[in-house]
Amino acid sequence: MTTLQDVLLSAIEIELQHQISRLATPRLQPLHDMLTYHMGWTGDGSGRSTQGKRIRPLLLLLICAACGGDWNAVLPAAASVELVHNFSLIHDDIQDNSAKRRGRDTVWFKWGMPQGINAGDALFVIANSALLDLVHSFDAELIFSATTILQAACLNLTEGQFLDISYEKRVDLTMEDYWTMATGKTAALLSACCAIGSLLGGGDETIRDAYRNYGHFLGLAFQVQDDYLGIWGDSALTGKSIASDLVTGKNSLPVLFGLEKKGAFAKRWLNGSISADEVRGLSDQLETEGARLFTQNTADQLTDMALQYLRSAEPVGDFGQELFELTNRLMGRQG
Amino acid sequence: MTTLQDVLLSAIEIELQHQISRLATPRLQPLHDMLTYHMGWTGDGSGRSTQGKRIRPLLLLLICAACGGDWNAVLPAAASVELVHNFSLIHDDIQDNSAKRRGRDTVWFKWGMPQGINAGDALFVIANSALLDLVHSFDAELIFSATTILQAACLNLTEGQFLDISYEKRVDLTMEDYWTMATGKTAALLSACCAIGSLLGGGDETIRDAYRNYGHFLGLAFQVQDDYLGIWGDSALTGKSIASDLVTGKNSLPVLFGLEKKGAFAKRWLNGSISADEVRGLSDQLETEGARLFTQNTADQLTDMALQYLRSAEPVGDFGQELFELTNRLMGRQG
Repeated sequence: MTTLQDVLLSAIEIELQHQISRLATPRLQPLHDMLTYHMGWTGDGSGRSTQGKRIRPLLLLLICAACGGDWNAVLPAAASVELVHNFSLIHDDIQDNSAKRRGRDTVWFKWGMPQGINAGDALFVIANSALLDLVHSFDAELIFSATTILQAACLNLTEGQFLDISYEKRVDLTMEDYWTMATGKTAALLSACCAIGSLLGGGDETIRDAYRNYGHFLGLAFQVQDDYLGIWGDSALTGKSIASDLVTGKNSLPVLFGLEKKGAFAKRWLNGSISADEVRGLSDQLETEGARLFTQNTADQLTDMALQYLRSAEPVGDFGQELFELTNRLMGRQG
Repeated sequence: MTTLQDVLLSAIEIELQHQISRLATPRLQPLHDMLTYHMGWTGDGSGRSTQGKRIRPLLLLLICAACGGDWNAVLPAAASVELVHNFSLIHDDIQDNSAKRRGRDTVWFKWGMPQGINAGDALFVIANSALLDLVHSFDAELIFSATTILQAACLNLTEGQFLDISYEKRVDLTMEDYWTMATGKTAALLSACCAIGSLLGGGDETIRDAYRNYGHFLGLAFQVQDDYLGIWGDSALTGKSIASDLVTGKNSLPVLFGLEKKGAFAKRWLNGSISADEVRGLSDQLETEGARLFTQNTADQLTDMALQYLRSAEPVGDFGQELFELTNRLMGRQG
């Protein structure tokens, strides 16, 4: 059975391909290849599972339609936010020196660092350009407003990235630092997707505000849940302990909670890298100190806040229904 | 005596500082420092001589005024194009593994590659955001058009950069490849500056077209002259032969001319890196094969074409006069 989500996802994929086809000329073939490879359409291991969940464009389209707008008309905006996300992933992989993403070689690892930086830049330019394609259905004032929202989120993204890179070398981080970083790296763009979707869908200021807040809290909840799974998720705990955030040294929320406790976990953490053998014991220690419950509760509370804002936005019809279901699915709830 | 150019240059500097001050918050201080350092305002060796010539914003302001517009109103656009140029320089330095720019440590060399990539990204976002500040004096439709011109130039910039990086490893390049690359890397943004200046200055389509072409040929002329100086300029030939494009292996126009000749120069070039000792002899060989005259003639012809388009744009008043003088100064002519 074809679901509403399937319809939207395939329309998103077609629009993304259309946007990136700006570079589909013989002379630029390898640059075009880098981008279609990164997006999961071409090359080794391409396919649905490597394309990511396309959450950001999905939210934008659903919210537009749930405000009574025409989701078809806002596809260029949906592509734009997804391309911004992917530009940041390409640069992130270079900054983190990551050779793999979703089990495949990263762009820089495959084509070299200089081309990797440039491929990310190109994707960002295409993201900016995609928004201008809204001109076929919207007046310049609305495009101006959408661009303003998007660029503000992009600035937050670079702020969050700056903090993330800076934090790697610091051991004096607090949970306050965590929220600033998570807001920049995750919540800002999700919030922008929701704001742009409701703006273009014709929502009034109250509605747009509600969606903006929904996206913000959904983004934070999503980040906290990611941090939870990074320590207590199946792949972190069983077998592939090497995937645990404890091994990679990520300053995740449970870790910062543990550091503030200044207990046995903090002592060990500050004493150098964690080996895969220590993962089980150390995650148990963190749990004993209360970090697991705290993190789970935080994710729950943030999800509740997101859902509360979503309800106050009064999304209509099947698209509204789908927004609640998507939120619950994302946060691992039965709904 | 304060010249017209001095007045414009100091207004540009103030606007640039204003735009970058978006990041002037305590938590983001180091990120703000990276950008003010790169722009030549702070840190070791800061000062006028390290700030670059600000040609792009200067052209934009002069053309706006020479079309009868108010240059004060378009300062955000002038800042935007200069910020795009500087974002590309920050990334370029990483891609080229350059530790120095204008005698100072590059951003990535000082703060590390991950922060360098992010600082470039942040500057690009600020460039996009600066254009939106035109809203104080222009309607959304004009901002839309200016944004469209700028993003098209940015896409060309990444295309040129892709070719430049790809070309490093190739020995089968033709002069045709050269023009494609130079158009993307240099001419596209200069042309966009001129197009945006005339658009916002109120020039009609014919005038805008003339300025767009002026910028295009000025950009190509500028690049060819840069290539000329990279081999036959004072610092390339005398004393600091290490600065010669022959040593760095750059695929410049004289080199591609020499390669197409398939003579003694081509034979030596294809036989591996050139040492500083060989610079004098090899540049003489290139000259004998006709490359020096060809390159000089090409720069002259391109400059003539630029000036022809400038005349056809009929720039008015002191600003118009200054445009001719700036063009001649840039190209080393008496005017």
